[in-house]
Amino acid sequence: MTAHVPDPGAPGYDVMPWGLRWHGLDTDALKRHESTFALANGHIGLRGSLDEGEPVGLPGTYLNGFFERRPLPYAETGYGDPEDGQTIVNVTDGKIIRLLVEDEPLDMRYGSTLAHERTIDFRAGTLRRRTDWESPTGSRVRIESERLVSFTQRAIAAIHYQVEALDEPLQLVVQSELLANEPTETSADPRAAAALEAPLVPDAASSVHYRAVLGHHTRRSGLRMAAAMDHHVHAPDKLRTRIEAAGDSARLTITAMVPAGRRLRITKYLAYGWSSHRSTPALQAQVHAALDGALQIGWQGLQHDQRHYLDDFWEAADIEVAGDPELQQALRFALFHVLQAGARGESRAIPAKGLTGPGYDGHAFWDTESFVLPVLTYTTPQAARDVLRWRHSTLPKARVRARELGQAGAAFPWRTIDGDECSGYWPAGTAAFHINADVADATARYLDATGDTAFEVDFGAELLVETARLWASLGHHDRQTGFRIDGVTGPDEYTAVKNNNVYTNLMARRNLREAVAVCERHPEVASRLGVEESEIRRWRKAADKMAIPYDEALGVHPQCDDFTCYADWDFEATPADSYPLLLHFPYVDLYRKQVVKQADLVLAMHLAGDAFTPEQKARNFAYYEARTVRDSSLSAATQAVLAAEVGHLELAYDYLGEAAFADLHDVQHNVASGVHIASLAGAWAATVAGLGGMRDHHGQLSFAPRLPPQLAGLAFRMRFAGRQIRVKISADHATYQLFRGKPLEFAHHGQPVTIGPGEEISLPTPPLPRREPPSQPPGRAPARRRPATTR
Amino acid sequence: MTAHVPDPGAPGYDVMPWGLRWHGLDTDALKRHESTFALANGHIGLRGSLDEGEPVGLPGTYLNGFFERRPLPYAETGYGDPEDGQTIVNVTDGKIIRLLVEDEPLDMRYGSTLAHERTIDFRAGTLRRRTDWESPTGSRVRIESERLVSFTQRAIAAIHYQVEALDEPLQLVVQSELLANEPTETSADPRAAAALEAPLVPDAASSVHYRAVLGHHTRRSGLRMAAAMDHHVHAPDKLRTRIEAAGDSARLTITAMVPAGRRLRITKYLAYGWSSHRSTPALQAQVHAALDGALQIGWQGLQHDQRHYLDDFWEAADIEVAGDPELQQALRFALFHVLQAGARGESRAIPAKGLTGPGYDGHAFWDTESFVLPVLTYTTPQAARDVLRWRHSTLPKARVRARELGQAGAAFPWRTIDGDECSGYWPAGTAAFHINADVADATARYLDATGDTAFEVDFGAELLVETARLWASLGHHDRQTGFRIDGVTGPDEYTAVKNNNVYTNLMARRNLREAVAVCERHPEVASRLGVEESEIRRWRKAADKMAIPYDEALGVHPQCDDFTCYADWDFEATPADSYPLLLHFPYVDLYRKQVVKQADLVLAMHLAGDAFTPEQKARNFAYYEARTVRDSSLSAATQAVLAAEVGHLELAYDYLGEAAFADLHDVQHNVASGVHIASLAGAWAATVAGLGGMRDHHGQLSFAPRLPPQLAGLAFRMRFAGRQIRVKISADHATYQLFRGKPLEFAHHGQPVTIGPGEEISLPTPPLPRREPPSQPPGRAPARRRPATTR
Repeated sequence: MTAHVPDPGAPGYDVMPWGLRWHGLDTDALKRHESTFALANGHIGLRGSLDEGEPVGLPGTYLNGFFERRPLPYAETGYGDPEDGQTIVNVTDGKIIRLLVEDEPLDMRYGSTLAHERTIDFRAGTLRRRTDWESPTGSRVRIESERLVSFTQRAIAAIHYQVEALDEPLQLVVQSELLANEPTETSADPRAAAALEAPLVPDAASSVHYRAVLGHHTRRSGLRMAAAMDHHVHAPDKLRTRIEAAGDSARLTITAMVPAGRRLRITKYLAYGWSSHRSTPALQAQVHAALDGALQIGWQGLQHDQRHYLDDFWEAADIEVAGDPELQQALRFALFHVLQAGARGESRAIPAKGLTGPGYDGHAFWDTESFVLPVLTYTTPQAARDVLRWRHSTLPKARVRARELGQAGAAFPWRTIDGDECSGYWPAGTAAFHINADVADATARYLDATGDTAFEVDFGAELLVETARLWASLGHHDRQTGFRIDGVTGPDEYTAVKNNNVYTNLMARRNLREAVAVCERHPEVASRLGVEESEIRRWRKAADKMAIPYDEALGVHPQCDDFTCYADWDFEATPADSYPLLLHFPYVDLYRKQVVKQADLVLAMHLAGDAFTPEQKARNFAYYEARTVRDSSLSAATQAVLAAEVGHLELAYDYLGEAAFADLHDVQHNVASGVHIASLAGAWAATVAGLGGMRDHHGQLSFAPRLPPQLAGLAFRMRFAGRQIRVKISADHATYQLFRGKPLEFAHHGQPVTIGPGEEISLPTPPLPRREPPSQPPGRAPARRRPATTR
Repeated sequence: MTAHVPDPGAPGYDVMPWGLRWHGLDTDALKRHESTFALANGHIGLRGSLDEGEPVGLPGTYLNGFFERRPLPYAETGYGDPEDGQTIVNVTDGKIIRLLVEDEPLDMRYGSTLAHERTIDFRAGTLRRRTDWESPTGSRVRIESERLVSFTQRAIAAIHYQVEALDEPLQLVVQSELLANEPTETSADPRAAAALEAPLVPDAASSVHYRAVLGHHTRRSGLRMAAAMDHHVHAPDKLRTRIEAAGDSARLTITAMVPAGRRLRITKYLAYGWSSHRSTPALQAQVHAALDGALQIGWQGLQHDQRHYLDDFWEAADIEVAGDPELQQALRFALFHVLQAGARGESRAIPAKGLTGPGYDGHAFWDTESFVLPVLTYTTPQAARDVLRWRHSTLPKARVRARELGQAGAAFPWRTIDGDECSGYWPAGTAAFHINADVADATARYLDATGDTAFEVDFGAELLVETARLWASLGHHDRQTGFRIDGVTGPDEYTAVKNNNVYTNLMARRNLREAVAVCERHPEVASRLGVEESEIRRWRKAADKMAIPYDEALGVHPQCDDFTCYADWDFEATPADSYPLLLHFPYVDLYRKQVVKQADLVLAMHLAGDAFTPEQKARNFAYYEARTVRDSSLSAATQAVLAAEVGHLELAYDYLGEAAFADLHDVQHNVASGVHIASLAGAWAATVAGLGGMRDHHGQLSFAPRLPPQLAGLAFRMRFAGRQIRVKISADHATYQLFRGKPLEFAHHGQPVTIGPGEEISLPTPPLPRREPPSQPPGRAPARRRPATTR
């Protein structure tokens, strides 16, 4: 019916617990599959394009943080509007291994594809491909390749590529390439397009034996990069090779006669490096060294380390589902992509699309701190720490931006690659100051969940203090309301530039209080940061007097001042093809009405849930459920969390499904430009915080697990302050296991529990509160999810 | 000190009661003088550049409504953002009369200028120039020229040009030109610049005898135009002429030997025509015909008609000032330019800069209805009618725009040339819905002041009804506040997208009530417009329940909901060079604070003054006076009106001065791109509504005249429903004269008075209420005005 329901006639991915497989070549779905089959380690990202380079949807090879600047145009410029945008660059493509079979180029659009499948293996961390192809002249070959982007050697990717001559001896020519400035789609804006067409300027090219290096830089952002390849080649018979490198391309050509039933085997090692400071020679040396390291360990060594890294990850992060194999697959797919986005970023951002596509220009948003970091904090805390260190590294820019906006402290950008604000529409960018509280929230959560005092002293305290300073200057005490924060935009982008957004104010309150606490814990740090007693008093007073609007007559929290007085949206008169609304209605209309793009007050009830009574939560949830259209992929997961909390388990399950399948079902029709990392992270939240009821207010862990009737069982794992925990949910009870670490105090449905290492405790689930199921705007209910097994 | 004080050391215009004169050539002030010395009749505008074309500041010849489209760029596009902008085109320049004296081109940057002055004569309606020039080789000539743009023959301009050989016989060569696509300054945006560079495409060129015609069209807007010139030439001796026309230029070359003390005399007639429908041949025929008409009447006939037209105007519009000759001059300068902007537009807009320069892209704003039309309504009502007919002609576009914005009725554009919205920043454009109530206000005022039933039936009713429909759909009744209008921007552009802006709501209320009234007066018209009884009831209910926020604690009206709760602007920390604030602070900061760019609530107290008590007015005025920075040229006049009403006469006089001298003193440093028609019209309002206390609520005329202590006397004239009135203000009384028309009932300081035709009534001025003088933000008080005579 609506965009939320995938086409049931479409061929799907194979349902399997530990992988994702697609059979056949769907040329209409090239871009989608390049995103879902993308490999990345947080530093290097390779879209899942075919080895032979074509057919291709949207070629993409990314280095986290490597971007080009472009002018941002305005019809009418305002002071403080950013002049420059940033766009992630499709860097030198090292994935290409072209094949000629008896002079016919392998291109699956021609000849016959007898068999073709590709599989991501979530435990091996590789993309495997197997293709049987008959050339137009009747020669048949089998290609088996396996690709990885190494989690353990972050500068390295590798491809193990084998061609078998199936029926007869064949002359095979393989061209393994590095190719810069591939033609790709660019912006509609002519100036942006001009800046981004062929963004890489060649600096150096060299080749020797099986190895080649290309060096490039960007024109405007002035970043330099080097890409290099080396090869192991194993041919059954004699072999001719030629290597060349110049300008934008390098090529190793391998010519071999391969007897029937025999294989030509090539391992291609790729190394990437970039820097804004280091010279081209230094970068070349760096990729040479990375290649040497990879060659030394070899393909099997890389495979082994990859699997070992992932074993560790799954041990701490796995979610087990009984009764819905497709959901099981989707949740592991989600965790795998979240890991790929965040694993080895090391002081770089996590873009909204990870490194899987050019969507959102490769920018990072609040998604990182509010959706992705909770997952990483409880599963891969060192990755969460690295991302927070990236934020910290952008503090100088955020301080400058705060001054530009007339504020104290730091104002982090709404969207950015390197820390500079790149949002060209301030009501949904600059005004969304909540990102600063989101950074503080992620910082405080990381500190609570890890007890990482070194990080707290060196980085965390400063993040908390500088964001608190922003709130202290952005808000003010008025004569009666309290501490007001006027003219800001909350998470819901259909309600912008308003006063006292409840989410923003509650998160700002938490931010101020965490800053007070960190200064009290570490007076010497406070002193280093210039925090005086009077400033702490001001923070405490602002927090205590924070304005939280409440509509007494309706018994609900208005999302912001007066929200519940706004006109209702005429949902009955809004046809299904008018969604997403922002493409069919002007902001001037949306902003004046009670229509919600994405969870806002509902997100406040999750992240600042201790500020609401259970009854308020239930009423608020019902109120906003009827007004939320979910035109954002960030919404369903949060709605799942609150639906579960207030007792609508089937609805929670539906929303969990929507979040988990956002990319596999291409719910928003835009996975082509990359997977939605925050929505995938949201699937974790919908499971762990939703069905598991996990909360972590003030570092106090609590659970309220409940199994929706559609499932037979569910278990999730997490780390907490050096401990490793597994929570298993059955229909009428939950079982907690503590694998290692110190004894843990937590709450089960409000009841205090202590568990020791190696212990397992089963506790009954209290009865579900009975509440009327809420209703959504017409046509906007989530797809009712029925597990595949019950279809 | 601030931008509000002109440099006292700068040479000024000669102070004279009926003209504006400048001595000498100030090359730094070329652009400014081209604006102040511009001539126009509402259809054709000629900037006051020198006859010989160079030196020139900003060449400009404009045809009202003749524009080119250009793309409007956005960093992030929103639904409903206009894709195209419109920019007034500098059309074929017919002013140019080049002179060569013994082979030396007359260019005042070379040789010696022995004498040079230019004078606009407000009664003759001409620009006279007299220059004595010695060529680098020592030949001396005197040039006397006089230029007019005819008020009576709207397609015609003419230049009477004489050169005298001062000391010896001289060979003179005169080149009289039509020149299209003059090089000029264009936008910084490369796409806009590309669209606007050489915007005219040549279609036709022809010449015969002393006459030439050029036809052009614009590339994107597809408008066609023709420009033609013809000449009378009178030489003392033999004469050679040559005429040529091709592409972008036509030229009549006149070569003559002129004996010492004798003159070469040329009258150049210019005709212009343009159309979006008519063909190039038709337009050529049209300008030929216009030239023939002008030649028949001749230069003296044009002069005579011009003076006669202006005599009529001044008889109904003049303001007489005793005790401040500079103000006297400024007020007549103001009225002259307002007339030039609006006289013969005939179904075209009145751009914010009239036809005196390219400022604001040649767009018309609400300035037209709210500032210019009151002047025209009471002095030249047929011009007011024509402008309202222009608005009416754009109703189809306004209806389409309203649908695009999700509204009923009509939504007029914030800025436009042809009726399409051209605002590229919706919070200060589309959201300023008050323009629709401003159109209705001007319509109702025109109807009240003229009793023009034919216009009411054919045009006025539809304007009132369609704008009322907008308000009925834009607002809604909430549970407690009443009829709310949320998310709109009032006149103050430092406070945007707010709820229940008092100005907007009061003007919308008037709009709704006027629509009810016109439908009740003309049921057949209501029926034609599809208005049913139920719709009228809804309008009446919305008007009756209109939300008007009031801060009981402070006893003032917040400009919009919660305005008085916003943070104060830190004026003490705002240095003088940080004004205008919008160039130094972001909107996100301005919108959240109690800082006001321009009169907003104060304008409501003028135009909807009957909604406030005198005490509310005094308190509100003091409150907003302390928060208004006057970064808009539209502000001072309104502040003058209310300052006078609440009893601060000296302050009113200062603000009157600021409005009246906005262009002559170049208060905002931007008269280069055209004079500020609305500020000049505001000078009239500051005098007539301010010092004269004239109000016209519901068609009831009232006066409350008071003379500020700086003046010895003041008189103004106006028309009202066929009557002609003069009000003379002395220190302790006012004298009313009714020259013709039916007896008039009006109020003098609240006291009902009736005056018959030919009568004169003197009435005493009641004592001034004593109130504390209000204060302005530091450094933002208006310049204290001391009349020139008392210096």
